[in-house]
Amino acid sequence: MTRSPSVTGDELLASTAELVGIPSVSRHESVLADRAALELAACPWLEVTRVGDNVIARTCLGRRQRLLVGGHLDTVPPAANEVALVEDGAVWGLGACDMKGGLAVILDLAATCEAPAVDVTWCLYAREELARAENGLVELWSERPDLLDADAAVLCEPTDARVEAGCQGTLRAEVHLGGMRAHTARPSAGRNAIHRLAPLLTRVSTWSGRTVELGGCDFAEQLQAVCVSGGVAGNVVPDHAVLTLNHRFAPDHDAAAARTTVLDLADGLLEDGLGDRVLFVDEADGAPPALHHPLLAALVERSGRPPRGKLGWTDVATMWAHGIPATNFGPGDPLLAHHPDEHVTRESLARTHEVLGALLTFGTS
Amino acid sequence: MTRSPSVTGDELLASTAELVGIPSVSRHESVLADRAALELAACPWLEVTRVGDNVIARTCLGRRQRLLVGGHLDTVPPAANEVALVEDGAVWGLGACDMKGGLAVILDLAATCEAPAVDVTWCLYAREELARAENGLVELWSERPDLLDADAAVLCEPTDARVEAGCQGTLRAEVHLGGMRAHTARPSAGRNAIHRLAPLLTRVSTWSGRTVELGGCDFAEQLQAVCVSGGVAGNVVPDHAVLTLNHRFAPDHDAAAARTTVLDLADGLLEDGLGDRVLFVDEADGAPPALHHPLLAALVERSGRPPRGKLGWTDVATMWAHGIPATNFGPGDPLLAHHPDEHVTRESLARTHEVLGALLTFGTS
Repeated sequence: MTRSPSVTGDELLASTAELVGIPSVSRHESVLADRAALELAACPWLEVTRVGDNVIARTCLGRRQRLLVGGHLDTVPPAANEVALVEDGAVWGLGACDMKGGLAVILDLAATCEAPAVDVTWCLYAREELARAENGLVELWSERPDLLDADAAVLCEPTDARVEAGCQGTLRAEVHLGGMRAHTARPSAGRNAIHRLAPLLTRVSTWSGRTVELGGCDFAEQLQAVCVSGGVAGNVVPDHAVLTLNHRFAPDHDAAAARTTVLDLADGLLEDGLGDRVLFVDEADGAPPALHHPLLAALVERSGRPPRGKLGWTDVATMWAHGIPATNFGPGDPLLAHHPDEHVTRESLARTHEVLGALLTFGTS
Repeated sequence: MTRSPSVTGDELLASTAELVGIPSVSRHESVLADRAALELAACPWLEVTRVGDNVIARTCLGRRQRLLVGGHLDTVPPAANEVALVEDGAVWGLGACDMKGGLAVILDLAATCEAPAVDVTWCLYAREELARAENGLVELWSERPDLLDADAAVLCEPTDARVEAGCQGTLRAEVHLGGMRAHTARPSAGRNAIHRLAPLLTRVSTWSGRTVELGGCDFAEQLQAVCVSGGVAGNVVPDHAVLTLNHRFAPDHDAAAARTTVLDLADGLLEDGLGDRVLFVDEADGAPPALHHPLLAALVERSGRPPRGKLGWTDVATMWAHGIPATNFGPGDPLLAHHPDEHVTRESLARTHEVLGALLTFGTS
């Protein structure tokens, strides 16, 4: 059992800034994947496999348990924040929080934990910020499931070095409301589809979701309008309007139950004969907390803080769908993900590194 | 004084169908203008002038008064109704109601009223269905105001052979509401601009306008949402939403008063610091009824029905802005203008022809 040499917070800041400096917007991860593969291949105790722009590095020490530690290589598109800036004890820039800070921790631990207490699968994957069909982890599960086999998994999504367990499901629905065109000078001859949005929007904006406690974690459900459109011409009563909703549901509900929630919301507002309908355009089940697993329970204990539920959807659900208990644990404030001012602090990087390093070094002991 | 030979309703149906068969979507009126100019030029008592795609034909008989009778040549784009169909005593097809039926009446009267009791200016103009800046009548007022001089005017817009006096003003306003972006899993970190539309849409959809009586005509004001848009991405709390309103206001109000109406509607819903604003993107004053003019009073009397206020905006306002009392009077149900099922009946064509022909033949006597 080898304890990795201690890395300083400043060194993690510097390596995070370096990673921010390697652009990796979704579908353009290859340079960063090259760099990660090169660093990992320099460690003789790791078996490195490249599958497309995904990089997997595994120890094969014959340990009793295997932990997968994963993170995505891609970022969302820039918001005038491509250049990394180290200031006030933090790295600012695109992906600093989501999740190049996590990648910096992963790459340092992979390069230094030569003899961890559990076998480790380091998994760096592409296109997490896109639709599910493009996701690199989904690609790996399809192409090389053997590489992903593990007893438990930790995804280093931003949680500010706190265990955020499971994840909520997500559902997108389009509510289409119809009407009848008429000249705006004579609206009583028609039916205004945009006006028909009023009671629906009132319900959406005053909607109060369940807060569900699972495994000691609260999951607060959400419902947000994310798009609205409608209109024919400046002098025409419009006959069609669409409100797109995003519902985040607690992991005790599956997508079918979430669809019912949305249909209940629209109850009484849809009419026959106007073409009204609800279309479910995108959905993904969540995952319950799986902190009963000894490795994840040990992570909670070492983190020193009570776990909380993950409100955003993450690939924890992808792992769970393949039967692997997983949790989120990484540096960076989750509220800053995708934010123009995203950054990650020295403390958050160092704390994540310390907790995760200790888990690898000591396992469940 | 010559009475024009009587045309039958079936002949008017046939000539309307023929005009529907000559496509004239806005900016593509030249073939129809050619045809009209040719017919009018065959009448030796008419002085015909072509200005772009506008055609003006005038008698110059030295009468004490001059009446302008006008109509636009263009139609809105087709809605799978380009082919004229004569059935059940009506012509169906693009522009049948708005306003090729009126053009058929105009062309027949112009070709047969050789010696009317008043001098007549027949005015056929282009691009009425587009923005004001493109309107052919506006072009004529700019290029050849001498050709438009008259004591009164009748526009053969669809009114079902009833005097529809004056016209309401129209105003278009964009209400922009701001917000703050956040992840939809954590909406409390942001502010949803689409949700902020809810109280505004409730006010719009329950808005009750004034009904103003002017010169014996009622003008019922209207306010309709004509466009709505907003949204950033499927997982982002949106920070911007726009609702476009069309306000139709009675002619006792000018556009400045109409702007106040819209601002009052939004009162208390706009916030500082979020970029909220109301933009007025288009406005046109209306015109009061001008039925005191003897020629228009005679038209009302000959129509045999009480006048009513014109609720849509028409070029009656353009004439009024140049000091010429004007009214709407033409064949076709105004509710069918721009409707996929638009049509005009034999009775409506014949009645319009009879009343307008008698007015020209007998004047105010």
